[in-house]
Amino acid sequence: MDSEVVFIGLGNMGLPMALNLVRSGLGVSGHDLMPASVEKFVAGGGTNNPDLVSAIKAAKTIITMLPASRHVESAYFGDHGILAQASPGALLIDCSTIAPESARKVAATASQKGFTMVDAPVSGGTGGAAAGTLTFMVGGSVAGFDLAKPFFEIMGKAIFHAGESGSGQTVKMCNNMLLGILMIGTSEAIRLGMANGMDPKVLSEVMSKSSGRNWTLEVYNPCPGVMENAPASKDYSGGFGVDLMLKDLGQATENALSTSSSIPLGSLARNLYDIHSKSGAGGLDFSSIFNMLGKAK
Amino acid sequence: MDSEVVFIGLGNMGLPMALNLVRSGLGVSGHDLMPASVEKFVAGGGTNNPDLVSAIKAAKTIITMLPASRHVESAYFGDHGILAQASPGALLIDCSTIAPESARKVAATASQKGFTMVDAPVSGGTGGAAAGTLTFMVGGSVAGFDLAKPFFEIMGKAIFHAGESGSGQTVKMCNNMLLGILMIGTSEAIRLGMANGMDPKVLSEVMSKSSGRNWTLEVYNPCPGVMENAPASKDYSGGFGVDLMLKDLGQATENALSTSSSIPLGSLARNLYDIHSKSGAGGLDFSSIFNMLGKAK
Amino acid sequence: MDSEVVFIGLGNMGLPMALNLVRSGLGVSGHDLMPASVEKFVAGGGTNNPDLVSAIKAAKTIITMLPASRHVESAYFGDHGILAQASPGALLIDCSTIAPESARKVAATASQKGFTMVDAPVSGGTGGAAAGTLTFMVGGSVAGFDLAKPFFEIMGKAIFHAGESGSGQTVKMCNNMLLGILMIGTSEAIRLGMANGMDPKVLSEVMSKSSGRNWTLEVYNPCPGVMENAPASKDYSGGFGVDLMLKDLGQATENALSTSSSIPLGSLARNLYDIHSKSGAGGLDFSSIFNMLGKAK
Amino acid sequence: MDSEVVFIGLGNMGLPMALNLVRSGLGVSGHDLMPASVEKFVAGGGTNNPDLVSAIKAAKTIITMLPASRHVESAYFGDHGILAQASPGALLIDCSTIAPESARKVAATASQKGFTMVDAPVSGGTGGAAAGTLTFMVGGSVAGFDLAKPFFEIMGKAIFHAGESGSGQTVKMCNNMLLGILMIGTSEAIRLGMANGMDPKVLSEVMSKSSGRNWTLEVYNPCPGVMENAPASKDYSGGFGVDLMLKDLGQATENALSTSSSIPLGSLARNLYDIHSKSGAGGLDFSSIFNMLGKAK
Repeated sequence: MDSEVVFIGLGNMGLPMALNLVRSGLGVSGHDLMPASVEKFVAGGGTNNPDLVSAIKAAKTIITMLPASRHVESAYFGDHGILAQASPGALLIDCSTIAPESARKVAATASQKGFTMVDAPVSGGTGGAAAGTLTFMVGGSVAGFDLAKPFFEIMGKAIFHAGESGSGQTVKMCNNMLLGILMIGTSEAIRLGMANGMDPKVLSEVMSKSSGRNWTLEVYNPCPGVMENAPASKDYSGGFGVDLMLKDLGQATENALSTSSSIPLGSLARNLYDIHSKSGAGGLDFSSIFNMLGKAK
Repeated sequence: MDSEVVFIGLGNMGLPMALNLVRSGLGVSGHDLMPASVEKFVAGGGTNNPDLVSAIKAAKTIITMLPASRHVESAYFGDHGILAQASPGALLIDCSTIAPESARKVAATASQKGFTMVDAPVSGGTGGAAAGTLTFMVGGSVAGFDLAKPFFEIMGKAIFHAGESGSGQTVKMCNNMLLGILMIGTSEAIRLGMANGMDPKVLSEVMSKSSGRNWTLEVYNPCPGVMENAPASKDYSGGFGVDLMLKDLGQATENALSTSSSIPLGSLARNLYDIHSKSGAGGLDFSSIFNMLGKAK
Repeated sequence: MDSEVVFIGLGNMGLPMALNLVRSGLGVSGHDLMPASVEKFVAGGGTNNPDLVSAIKAAKTIITMLPASRHVESAYFGDHGILAQASPGALLIDCSTIAPESARKVAATASQKGFTMVDAPVSGGTGGAAAGTLTFMVGGSVAGFDLAKPFFEIMGKAIFHAGESGSGQTVKMCNNMLLGILMIGTSEAIRLGMANGMDPKVLSEVMSKSSGRNWTLEVYNPCPGVMENAPASKDYSGGFGVDLMLKDLGQATENALSTSSSIPLGSLARNLYDIHSKSGAGGLDFSSIFNMLGKAK
Repeated sequence: MDSEVVFIGLGNMGLPMALNLVRSGLGVSGHDLMPASVEKFVAGGGTNNPDLVSAIKAAKTIITMLPASRHVESAYFGDHGILAQASPGALLIDCSTIAPESARKVAATASQKGFTMVDAPVSGGTGGAAAGTLTFMVGGSVAGFDLAKPFFEIMGKAIFHAGESGSGQTVKMCNNMLLGILMIGTSEAIRLGMANGMDPKVLSEVMSKSSGRNWTLEVYNPCPGVMENAPASKDYSGGFGVDLMLKDLGQATENALSTSSSIPLGSLARNLYDIHSKSGAGGLDFSSIFNMLGKAK
C-alpha cells in the first residue's frame, strides 16, 4: 500500500518530525542516506519503501528536511530528482533551512512544472521537533500554504505565512540574524551592569519591562543563575548551539552580499561567534557568548 | 510660606515634571539658571524663592534634574551646594541622567552627612514628562526608595527599585545601550528582508512573535509605514533624538572604559549613530538609523 | 597568419593591457562581447579573428581578463570553452580577479587536461594598465610562472610568484582587504588628530615615520590637501572607486565564510564602504571614506 | 651641589631614561615614590636629593615620566606642585603618555606662570629606553622644542615636533590607535591567506611590496615563524603588551568621546583586545591577537 507522505531527511530534526506525522495516523515513507536513521524511523512505527523513486511517484505529499542549499537542489533537480519524478498535483514542502535565493530557484522550477510548493523552515530545535511545538515560517502561495498547513499543525504550534516563495527562508534568516544580535547586545548590557555592581537578575527584570525588552532577556537569559531553566544555568548545554548560530549568521552574511545589504551589527556578530567557536565553544549553547565578554577563570 | 519641595532644573524635562508636582498640591519652589524657564514655571502655578540657598535650607525634599554629571556635582558639592546647605533629614532626589560613578560619589557624600538620597533617572521623553507617565529607575536604600516613591507616583507610572546608590543610573545606561543596539539590529533585519522582496510589515509581525522579538519591533518600528504612530511614519520626527542616543551610548562607552568592560556591539552602535549624526540627522528620531542602511534618494 | 596570443576581455583594463602586447610586437587576436571594444583594439593595431574557436585552437597563449568568477568559468568550461578547444601545450593565463576557489577549480581541470595555467590578477588600475606598470600576483607552478613572466613584463612592472594555483587570487584578495582596513584606520586617526587641533600634514608625516606607517599614509593620504596628487586632493576623483573596494571586500567576506575565517575588521570595513556607497559615493575614490567620518557640509 | 636636572618617575621606562642622562654627564636628581627605584637609580650613578621641593626649586630642567593624567596633574598642580615651586625660567618636560586634554591644561597653566613646557611622550618600549633609541613626539612652542631637544637626543633617536602643546600626546594617541588597527587587520589578512593554503611568509612578502604594506607587516609580523626576531616567533613574549595597547586604545576612545569623533575600527579594535585580555592574554605581546583569530589548540 502506498504512503501518502514521503519524508526525505531523517536527521536530528527530521526524524522526530516524521515520527509525529506517523503518530497522527498518516502513512509516511521515510528516507535518509544513513541506514541507521531509517532503522530508527521504522522502529518508531514508520515505513520505508526501499525504492525511493517509486515512493516519490506514489506520494501525494513530499516533505524534505535537508542540511543545506546544495542538498535541497540536488534532491529536487536532476533526472532522478523530485521535480522529475513526482506525480502531477503532488504537494512539495521543503522544511530545510537554506538560502532564500535557492528556495526561490527550486520553487520557480516546481511552479513551471505545475507543482504546488512551499518553503517552510522551522525553529524550536530538537526539543520542539520531538514535542510537536515547532514554529513554521512559510513561503509560497496562499493556496499552497492552506494545503500544507495541516501537516504543520501536526508537527508544530506557531505557523506563519510570510509571503511568496522564499519568504519562509527570508523570515527565518532575518529573525535568526536579529536573534544573534539580541543575544550579544543583552550579554553586553548585563555584563556592563554587573561591572557596576548590579544584580543581574534585577537588571534583567527592569530592562524586560523597559525599552531594552527582547526575547533573550525574557526567556533565554545568558547570565548563569538568572533563569533556572535557561541553558546559561545548565553550563550552557542544550538549546541552540554556537555553531548553528554561526551557520545562520553566515547565511545572512552571504545573502547580504548578494543583495547589497548593509548589516554592520550582523557581520560583527558573525565574527564574534566565529572567534568564540574557535576558542572551543562551538558545541555550547549560543548564549555562552556571555562568557567571552567576561574574565576567563 | 516655605515650600516643601525645591526643584532645581526646569528644562524640557524638568519643567513639566515640576509642574505635575505643583498640580498635585505640593508647594514647589522652582529654580533654573534661565529666567525664562522660571517664568514659565511660575506662570504654570509654581513659586520661586529668589534666594536659592534659603529655599534649600527650608525644603524637606530637594529634586534635581540637570544635564550632566558636572552640573550635578556642582549643585551638590561646594560651600553653597545642596549638601552644605540642606536641613538635616532632607530627602535628596536626583532625576538627572549622569554617570553611575558620579551618582555613587554624590550619594556617598550625602550619606556621610546624614542625608537620604536616591538617584532616579527617567525615561519616557518630554511627552511622558508632561503626561506624568515617566519610568523611574531608582538607586538607593529601601528606606530612601519608599520615601521618594510618592513623588515618582505623581510624575510617572512605572517605578523600579534597582538596588544601591548609582543603580538607577546603571540600569538606565545599560537599558539605553541595549535599546540603541536593538534599533540598529532590527533595522538591519528589516532591510535585509526587504532586499529579498519581503513586506516589512509581515516580516515585523512574524519576528515579533518569534525569537527576534524586541521592544523596537513591537512598539517603535523603524520602517516608515509599518506603524502609523511610530516616528518612522512621521518623517522620523518626535521621539528620542539621534543625538540623545549618541550621548547615552557615549556614557556607556565611557563607563565601559572605567570598568574594563567589553561592549563590541555597543561601541559599534555608538560610532554608527555618530556617523549618522554627522551626516545631518542628529535631530531626527533615533530610528532614522534605518535610513543610513538604505540608498539615499 | 595565426596570432600567437588570444586575448579575451577588452574592457577598461583588458584593452590597454592587450594593446601593450601588440606594441611589443606580438601577434594578438583580441576578443570581447562588445563590438565597440574590439573596434578600439583593432584601431590600436590589434587584430581580431572573427572565429573565436579557431583563434583559440591556433593560439600558443590565451589570456583572459573578465569581470567575475562566473564569466571565467563560463569561458573555460563547456563544449566551446577554452579547455575544450585550446591546442595541447597552450599556456593559459587568467588575469581576472575572481574567487580563489574558482581559480583553483579552473586550474585543476586545466591541469588534468595537460595545460599549463596561471592565475595572475593585477593591481594598479587603468592608469597602470595603460602605462604598462601593473603589479601581477601569480599563482601556479614555477614552470608556469616562468613561461608567463615575459608577458607580465610587457604589461607590468612588479611581478610576484605567490605559490600554487589560486595563490595569485588569494594574495590579491588578502592585500585588498587589508588595504580597505588601512584606509579607514588611517582616516580615523587623521580625523581624531584634527579634532584635537593637529595639522593633518604634520600628523601624517610623523605617523609615516612611526609604527602607524602604512601605504595609505605614505602614498595615498585620504585628507584633502595633504598630498597634492592623491585623489583626496582632486575631489576624490580618479584612483580606485568605492564600489570596486566594496566588491573586493565582498569577495573576501564570501571567502571568509567558505574557509571559516574570522575577519572582524574586514567585515566592518565592508559594511562601512557599503553604507558610504549607498549615500551616493560609490563612484568616488575609496579614500573618500574620510568624508563619512566628518561633518557633512 | 645642585643638580641641573630633576627627573620624577623612575619606573620601567623612567629609570633607564634618567640613567642615560646621568651617563651623558648631566647632574640628575632622581625621584620616585618607591624607594627601591630610587636606590637603583643611585646605584646606577644618579643622585637623589631627599628634599624634592628644594630639588625642584634648584633645577634648571624638570622631567616627569608618570603613569597617567592624574599623576601628572597631581605632580604639577597644588601648593607643593612643580608649577608652584620651580624657579622662574625652568624648562618643564613631561614624557608621560597622558590625555591630550590633560597635557593642554597643564601646559596652559605653565605658560601663564611663565614656564616653557613641552609634552613629549615616547615610543620604543623599555628596550628603546635602555638603548637610548626612543622616539619622542613633542608638543609645544618651537623655542621649547629647541630647548628640550638636546635631552631627547641623549635618550632617543627620532625626535618629531608635532605642533603646539598637547600635540605630542595627540600624535602618539593617533599613531597607537592606528597601530592597533594595523595589527588586527594584518592578522586577519594573513589568517585568511593561510585558510586558503598560502605560505604566510610569501603572503607577507608580497603584501609588504603592495598596497597592504604597513609597519606590522614589515617589522613586526604577527604570525609565528615569519620573522625570527618578532615577538610572534618567541611565544609572543617581549614587545608591547596587550594591556598596554588596550590602555592606549582606551585613551583614544575616551578622546573620541570628548571630541565627538567617529572611530569605528578603533573602537572595535579596543573591544577585541579587551576580549583577548580577558581570555588571559593581557601580558602577551599585542601581536598575539593573531591567536584569537585561529583555532585554540
